Amino acid sequence: MRGGGDMQGLYKIVFATCNKKKFEEVKEILQEYNIELERRDVKGLEIQSDELAPIALFSAIQAYNQVKREVIVEDSGLFIKSLKGFPGTYSSFVYRTLGLKGILKLMEGLEERSAYFLSSLGFCDGKEVKLFLGKVEGWVSYSERGDRGFGFDPIFIPEKLDKTFGELSLEEKNKISHRSRSVRQLAEWLKKYRQLTK
Amino acid sequence: MRGGGDMQGLYKIVFATCNKKKFEEVKEILQEYNIELERRDVKGLEIQSDELAPIALFSAIQAYNQVKREVIVEDSGLFIKSLKGFPGTYSSFVYRTLGLKGILKLMEGLEERSAYFLSSLGFCDGKEVKLFLGKVEGWVSYSERGDRGFGFDPIFIPEKLDKTFGELSLEEKNKISHRSRSVRQLAEWLKKYRQLTK
Repeated sequence: MRGGGDMQGLYKIVFATCNKKKFEEVKEILQEYNIELERRDVKGLEIQSDELAPIALFSAIQAYNQVKREVIVEDSGLFIKSLKGFPGTYSSFVYRTLGLKGILKLMEGLEERSAYFLSSLGFCDGKEVKLFLGKVEGWVSYSERGDRGFGFDPIFIPEKLDKTFGELSLEEKNKISHRSRSVRQLAEWLKKYRQLTK
Repeated sequence: MRGGGDMQGLYKIVFATCNKKKFEEVKEILQEYNIELERRDVKGLEIQSDELAPIALFSAIQAYNQVKREVIVEDSGLFIKSLKGFPGTYSSFVYRTLGLKGILKLMEGLEERSAYFLSSLGFCDGKEVKLFLGKVEGWVSYSERGDRGFGFDPIFIPEKLDKTFGELSLEEKNKISHRSRSVRQLAEWLKKYRQLTK
């Protein structure tokens, strides 16, 4: 079954992710567009690259081959300028090993704390593969603040705010986050090229 | 052309690597076994995994598909106990971004400095895919010492020595290193199952 509008005007796609908090974030945004999201764990290979784009495209194709329905995958990374882009595309491994404390230790004594979060969203329906990128600039905080969100959220302060992502509600984060930007691009694209009611 | 003995009794295989220092290390060891090594840059995908083995096996198959001759690939990682195995399979990215100084900073104040180097060597001849692992236990030093070798060599002290890999000659390193262990296993296997003169 491919995605598409049903009797109730809902458009359904699959999000291949095992991260439930990430799923909730994306689901929340897509509801605004009448798009219903279904979570699926998809096992497969992940390729290594210093760039997020090829990883998301490869994963989207691989996920489609397993679920055989319109599917999205999403990969994010925190790129810290003074650490030459570390942890970047390896953010999830670095989070599991060094954690927030490791990043703060690496940044000790550094005044240049600018960083950005990049979200790379891959879409595949078996015919088309699309990539949507979302970015938010900001800084690495001097300490952990807040316990919302996930991953490096408690040490990232987006520009024009004095709170970390970890201190924002889901609604606030979804207004400005890198992920919300890539997801909204996807939604706009679906609206334009598919039969969305909104 | 597949590998095999020629008139001079030399057995030839390809090493797919763009690291010339690594190539020299491996070449030196295989000469003891009358195996001649040819270096080739092979472009391709690298998969992500917290384990080296699948990465080497995937890369070996991919390299074979390009060179169509007996080929080896080798991937190493430094696994630091108190950093939960970091940098592990992502050692080359971490070396390029954080460098030796980054690892030493992460280890500041830590007395538990045990670590190991793991070498994962993949071999493929189009029919068989083989994996050889080599490991050396040791410690992370408190400062950079020596400028030989490459990568994290200047901050790794193998057990039973009070020198870092960076302070060892190629000959000394090749007696004990993780890489020499995986490479000698390959050589012994080739000796047993192929037409090696030695």
